Amino acid sequence: MDVHEVIERVLARVKPGEGERKLVDSITRELIKIAEEEIEEFGLDVRPVLVGSIAKDTYLSGDHDVDLFLAFPIDVPLKEVREEGFRLARMIGERLEGYEIGYAEHPYVRARYRGFHVDIVPCYDVKDWREVRTAVDRSILHTRWVIENLGGRNDEVRLLKRFFKGLRAYGSEAYVRGFSGYLAEILVIHYGSFLDVLEKADLMLKQKIIDPARWLRREPEIAMKTVGREIKEDNPLIVLDPVDPRRNVAANLSWERFALFYFGAMRFLKSPSEEFFFPRTAVGDYRAELRRKGTHLVTLLFDPPGLVDDVLLPQIEKSARGIARALELEGFTVLGFDYGGDYIFIEVGELSRPAVRVKRGPHFFTEMGRRFYEKNERTWVEGKDLIAEKPQEPYIVDVIEEILERGNVALGKNVREAIRRADILVDFVPRRLEESAYLFLSREQFRV
Amino acid sequence: MDVHEVIERVLARVKPGEGERKLVDSITRELIKIAEEEIEEFGLDVRPVLVGSIAKDTYLSGDHDVDLFLAFPIDVPLKEVREEGFRLARMIGERLEGYEIGYAEHPYVRARYRGFHVDIVPCYDVKDWREVRTAVDRSILHTRWVIENLGGRNDEVRLLKRFFKGLRAYGSEAYVRGFSGYLAEILVIHYGSFLDVLEKADLMLKQKIIDPARWLRREPEIAMKTVGREIKEDNPLIVLDPVDPRRNVAANLSWERFALFYFGAMRFLKSPSEEFFFPRTAVGDYRAELRRKGTHLVTLLFDPPGLVDDVLLPQIEKSARGIARALELEGFTVLGFDYGGDYIFIEVGELSRPAVRVKRGPHFFTEMGRRFYEKNERTWVEGKDLIAEKPQEPYIVDVIEEILERGNVALGKNVREAIRRADILVDFVPRRLEESAYLFLSREQFRV
Repeated sequence: MDVHEVIERVLARVKPGEGERKLVDSITRELIKIAEEEIEEFGLDVRPVLVGSIAKDTYLSGDHDVDLFLAFPIDVPLKEVREEGFRLARMIGERLEGYEIGYAEHPYVRARYRGFHVDIVPCYDVKDWREVRTAVDRSILHTRWVIENLGGRNDEVRLLKRFFKGLRAYGSEAYVRGFSGYLAEILVIHYGSFLDVLEKADLMLKQKIIDPARWLRREPEIAMKTVGREIKEDNPLIVLDPVDPRRNVAANLSWERFALFYFGAMRFLKSPSEEFFFPRTAVGDYRAELRRKGTHLVTLLFDPPGLVDDVLLPQIEKSARGIARALELEGFTVLGFDYGGDYIFIEVGELSRPAVRVKRGPHFFTEMGRRFYEKNERTWVEGKDLIAEKPQEPYIVDVIEEILERGNVALGKNVREAIRRADILVDFVPRRLEESAYLFLSREQFRV
Repeated sequence: MDVHEVIERVLARVKPGEGERKLVDSITRELIKIAEEEIEEFGLDVRPVLVGSIAKDTYLSGDHDVDLFLAFPIDVPLKEVREEGFRLARMIGERLEGYEIGYAEHPYVRARYRGFHVDIVPCYDVKDWREVRTAVDRSILHTRWVIENLGGRNDEVRLLKRFFKGLRAYGSEAYVRGFSGYLAEILVIHYGSFLDVLEKADLMLKQKIIDPARWLRREPEIAMKTVGREIKEDNPLIVLDPVDPRRNVAANLSWERFALFYFGAMRFLKSPSEEFFFPRTAVGDYRAELRRKGTHLVTLLFDPPGLVDDVLLPQIEKSARGIARALELEGFTVLGFDYGGDYIFIEVGELSRPAVRVKRGPHFFTEMGRRFYEKNERTWVEGKDLIAEKPQEPYIVDVIEEILERGNVALGKNVREAIRRADILVDFVPRRLEESAYLFLSREQFRV
């Protein structure tokens, strides 16, 4: 199929129709009105601002969470923004159809309204990056910049976002580390179109730095500091945020997710098809995968502490890596590991090891050799070396429990206790993890 | 028990009694007489010489093989010594109670006479090391030197030999690499007594060089050359042969056998007992040992080519080491290996491995990465690296067959074909190898 034909077909699916547009429009207008009423009531100098993909008109059909920000004047103290802003957000939430509290840098409100998710987030009404005080303050600037620069290429963004989704490369959350919506918008604005972005997949990696707002000329010192820091962190791309030279928009993008896009773009340009945007999701059976590979899956299931993913997941990753490394040192073959908010997967070659291990000691004729000989039960000599045999736990579950008890494995500090009390499952996962187990074992997650 | 009491008890068992002495005497005299008659018949200028432990009166009670050498004048050509000497040896053999042919540097005759083993070996009648032409020529010199220097300490030698035997450290054969009888004699002559030798176990290792005939003064150049060579070969001891400065009497002694003596001497001096000389030989069950250790035994059984042990065994060792190394590279845990004239043991942690292996490739965004991506079926990305999954044989027997077929494992050249056609047994050995399997798996062989 011709590439333009494919694009037409995809657009027909991702571009919101007239009815959807009207619905989104009326809902957002109602939300702003409710917010304005509550602000009035409250007697505060706060501006309700719509941000995110709905505000920028880059949302995908059927995928429209509303981001309603409550922008406080920058001379209000932070404590007041946090407390009063949260109180205001809850008051607006009360007017909607149920809400819950979310915790990021500050608490915020996650509500539902006429079937839409609505995030109500207090922030500062900053006019440029110098005024930014909290992480969410930039959103208003982002929204404004995209609206000013997109120049009608909204559908190109929709295509690129859907392309990322189809490749499992979309989302900047800590457990994804893919492309964010804002990054997709910047790439379209910078390179010109959806197809231009794909054609530049290799080039953008080689050039490494994308600077649409020309910060390197306007604020060379600050921008170079950002570049230096990001190069040191070895991130695949450095995209200087058009609204803030201190920030790399792609700071969270992992090499793996970039690679999914890299090979996806290559393959798509060679033989375009709708499949890339809407892959047939035939998730296989993880048990069959275990049989095919002749390997075993060990799962640690735990009750995580109530922390945001950005804090929690890196700690779980660190713990998973630590346990995998410890198992390797204990003599198991570790093929890989993966994790989620309350589990760690470790794929191993065998479930048990010998019941003894040999410990190589010093040369037998040395003073240390004599001590080693006296300290150990079963010793023998190989070449000049004394060798001792020691009993050890053979079964992997016992070994993991020993590793966790011994405590000399690097576990994230907030998850340490939870992981120590984890249930350890072998070659079996609860139903809700079956898909994750399959994606991990088959490596389809990062298959290219 | 007091050490002298122990020594008395051991001596009572290893020192030949009056009756045994008379028997040995009469037998050796008869053998010499038979040899003289055949030499007479043959019309050759050959001298029959008794060598070895009987000639030196250092044999252990009940352990008396006769070494009858046929010493040819040194001006007889080598070919003649070999051919005529062998013919003469066979003629003497015909007069005894059955014989067979042995092959060392030259063919010789192994006969039986009145219940005794008799080796009949042609050699040159050399008067010193400069005349030595074949390996066996030195025996006459050794015998003479020991007789001249032992000074009545024959029983000390008997104690030491029995001590080595009890520790499984006796015998210079290629498959033992322990202390020879001649080495025991030299040590007693050099250090003074059985107990002196034991007390010097550590010192002799530290001094490294034992030179009873003072070759380093008498023939410094030749002796230093020998020392240099033996140091390079990293042998535990350098005992310059009192009859030949070019030779290290301990050249064949392995570190493992020396260690058996080293720790044995230490323990004996601390708490002497007859056990050291006559250990209770309770050989265990190799299957129980496998269960205890939670390991597996792979045995290669083959038909070795007809070669002397000194040539064959090093090649089998090299092959065993090569196969063990290859199995480790293939992902198996190898705990150890051992071998004999027609078998190789390899102890492993598991009998199978995953049915797939992962192959780490180049960075995904390089030209090599692109080629790797195109060449491989299942690829994914970890960090910047492309990874490919490859199928592999999981079962160890198939893996060994593959290793042997592929031919990139270092096998000894004369045993290569035999080992390639070996039968491969798993966790089972023929009855005749059960004891060897136990000694290997329990590491009692070199247990200290």
